Amino acid sequence: MNYDEYPEFPRWEKNFTARSGEGLTIRNLSVRDMRWPTSLGAHGSDAMHTDPDYSCAYVVIYTMNDNEGHGLTFTLGRGTDIVVQAVHALSHLVVGQDAADIFNDFGAFWRKLTSETQLRWIGPEKGVMHLATAAIVNALWDLWARIQHKPLWKLIADMEPEQLVRCIDFRYITDVITPEEAVKILRERKPNRDRMEREALTRGYPAYTTQVGWLGYSNETVTQLCHKYLSEGFTAFKLKVGQDLQDDKRRCKLVRSIIGDDKILMVDANQNWDVQEAIAWMKELAVFKPLWIEEPTSPDDVLGHLAVSKALAPLGISVATGEMCANRVMFKQFLQSGAMQYCQIDSARIGGVNEILAVYLMAYKLGVKVCPHAGGVGLCEMVQHLQLFDYICLSQTSEGRFIEYVDQQHEHFVNPVHVRNSHYMPPKAPGYSTELRREAAEGYEWPVGSEWQKLFASGKFQDPKHVPTLPPTKH
Amino acid sequence: MNYDEYPEFPRWEKNFTARSGEGLTIRNLSVRDMRWPTSLGAHGSDAMHTDPDYSCAYVVIYTMNDNEGHGLTFTLGRGTDIVVQAVHALSHLVVGQDAADIFNDFGAFWRKLTSETQLRWIGPEKGVMHLATAAIVNALWDLWARIQHKPLWKLIADMEPEQLVRCIDFRYITDVITPEEAVKILRERKPNRDRMEREALTRGYPAYTTQVGWLGYSNETVTQLCHKYLSEGFTAFKLKVGQDLQDDKRRCKLVRSIIGDDKILMVDANQNWDVQEAIAWMKELAVFKPLWIEEPTSPDDVLGHLAVSKALAPLGISVATGEMCANRVMFKQFLQSGAMQYCQIDSARIGGVNEILAVYLMAYKLGVKVCPHAGGVGLCEMVQHLQLFDYICLSQTSEGRFIEYVDQQHEHFVNPVHVRNSHYMPPKAPGYSTELRREAAEGYEWPVGSEWQKLFASGKFQDPKHVPTLPPTKH
Repeated sequence: MNYDEYPEFPRWEKNFTARSGEGLTIRNLSVRDMRWPTSLGAHGSDAMHTDPDYSCAYVVIYTMNDNEGHGLTFTLGRGTDIVVQAVHALSHLVVGQDAADIFNDFGAFWRKLTSETQLRWIGPEKGVMHLATAAIVNALWDLWARIQHKPLWKLIADMEPEQLVRCIDFRYITDVITPEEAVKILRERKPNRDRMEREALTRGYPAYTTQVGWLGYSNETVTQLCHKYLSEGFTAFKLKVGQDLQDDKRRCKLVRSIIGDDKILMVDANQNWDVQEAIAWMKELAVFKPLWIEEPTSPDDVLGHLAVSKALAPLGISVATGEMCANRVMFKQFLQSGAMQYCQIDSARIGGVNEILAVYLMAYKLGVKVCPHAGGVGLCEMVQHLQLFDYICLSQTSEGRFIEYVDQQHEHFVNPVHVRNSHYMPPKAPGYSTELRREAAEGYEWPVGSEWQKLFASGKFQDPKHVPTLPPTKH
Repeated sequence: MNYDEYPEFPRWEKNFTARSGEGLTIRNLSVRDMRWPTSLGAHGSDAMHTDPDYSCAYVVIYTMNDNEGHGLTFTLGRGTDIVVQAVHALSHLVVGQDAADIFNDFGAFWRKLTSETQLRWIGPEKGVMHLATAAIVNALWDLWARIQHKPLWKLIADMEPEQLVRCIDFRYITDVITPEEAVKILRERKPNRDRMEREALTRGYPAYTTQVGWLGYSNETVTQLCHKYLSEGFTAFKLKVGQDLQDDKRRCKLVRSIIGDDKILMVDANQNWDVQEAIAWMKELAVFKPLWIEEPTSPDDVLGHLAVSKALAPLGISVATGEMCANRVMFKQFLQSGAMQYCQIDSARIGGVNEILAVYLMAYKLGVKVCPHAGGVGLCEMVQHLQLFDYICLSQTSEGRFIEYVDQQHEHFVNPVHVRNSHYMPPKAPGYSTELRREAAEGYEWPVGSEWQKLFASGKFQDPKHVPTLPPTKH
């Protein structure tokens, strides 16, 4: 791997290395720009993101006594280098710290990471900076779970309410939930934890599939995939919509005709509409009885989603959103106003496990069901842990809830998800299921990885070192 | 300047150079990481940002026929390199384009820049990516105004309503304003434009000062500065609050005692509070009769600001916010819900002039006064143009409005602001007043600039090339 040929990409490993310290002192933090060429197959295409190359900024934290924590945040290709640069900018807050101190007062550390006095300006708590925060924080949780020899869901489910609540920064959300209320809720639900854990281990947690309906797929592909997932026991299917109404009707009709009226159909517009347009379009699709319309408009538009929710409620259509919801403050408003009926937490966009726990607590208090967003790279691996926390410690039911499932990109992980009869089976390996296999990490690091070098040589992708000069569009 | 010693910082000029094309074809885009050591004097310190080094990502666009456009986005020091990396990632959408094509259909180009199919994921339209967008878009507007030999405010004020509206992307805001409504508003106000322009050229536009009340300043400094700005004709003064209630009372009392009851006092918490805390704190400060509380809580919390607005209205205190409002969709909700009574547009956070015009139009339609955020680096230089647009084309009054003014960092600009008798005097040089003087650009480029090298040598700042190894906090 020759980095010297790519001066414009941040190096994956810098010398932020602690000189002294022992035990759980964090001696190093590395971050890599990982990309996979998924745009070649139109996998993952939607109305706004037509050619994604599923990617991630991949962080590894090393302690003096050689424990490791792996964490990532999902990206779509270009721009992963920007997130990598942001991880570097945050790493001075992590390297040199004793991980035990971090875990003992994790909420305070999380605030420190998201409130760095100069870096805060270029967020705050959103976009590139928050994606970088998520990658680092997720690596810390993986480290903690490995040290405890537990899968992450079990680490959290075994916590005393006070310890769990101490991981959360309640800044800006105390008007909806206070630490005291959170402790009270968790304490009330605690007696059932053992039973819920046994049930989860036996039955797993229900999944739905998004794989039948990417915009780029042909009718034949849709039909074949519907039959495939029906035969695997899936009962809920999601379609992408929003680019062409007639085409949406054709595909909704096709899927509904194959899965029948007793199965669940959801549709997802990926933010393609304005508010009034979303309402008008969904009235046209109401005949296909979708459970929800996902991301009807801008992910920042709480009041817009509220208007869509009110307009579509009489038609029996709910609103789901969350995968691009910036942080707990935005989730708070969606939840408290009634702008979302399904809360789709994302494991990599908001600032890692700590902040997601806050969202689960607010959703539980306000009676909104959480159905995590997944797919991409590593999102399925991570959200299964989080939803198991909800199942064991909070809602204690999976009624009307499911985790999104896409069976792509799992082969790159040391501990990939295990979905059986349309259910996620609880992971048992210590950690957060976030470690990439060595071959994946070496082959797909952008742009120096061996697989990328092959793709450049084959002409399927352009080597960034050969595109410094761009032709003008005219003449 | 030796970049090789700083491998972790993105180079300011890459070879994104068009090979052919002519006239207004954009042949190159450069971006520099500019920082000033303002933390040494506690200038600009507030409750959340205690040690800012005023900085900017500084973009220069060059055309084939050697026209230039200069643009910037304001930052606080660390993290400017991340914004620079983001500008690089966007530059392939700009270099090689004919600037005339961009200006003829600027709204469409703006959408292209903010909707890049892979980069969109790490925003969208917020944080690092939107700051980078602002720097590029502001450079394009500077280029356009220079080509037309007009200051930016005059370029906009001379536009036909249809041409102006064509610069705006109305995606996600049509539920509050449509292009047709915007044209109608501008057409109705058009007959008064000439008169308003003459008045602006004679009287200027009123300013208020923030300079009396940074948190780090002593009583003596506050007293001396109050007298200084009173003697310069200022009638409105802003104080930072939010860290210590007793200290806030002491300083509010001091300022009010010096300026008297007939002058205006505003207070600014810089997001330091939760919602209920903001209400309780401001009830304590109500006796000093502040016109507004600025940024009482998270900049993302529309419903929180609405709750604060409702609670403080009976006390005669308004809510002002906007400097960290992420985009037009967030502004839309603040404006339509009544969560802000003063709209503080920022020239460098949302995506440049195009998106700010959309915010002005929504604010005008919904009857909310715009009082721009300024200070930092270049913000005063830019917002004066924008507020003049409002004065000439929209509100056509400065009643109850003013532009923030801080007299720092102006000396770095080729065309600095000219404030006379507490009024911004309309700039007359062609462009957007965004060009840095050559000495500033060379001296303060981080970390290679000559002034920084001197600061490293003096030990006042640490050279980043010497801090790869961080000591652990314990042992």
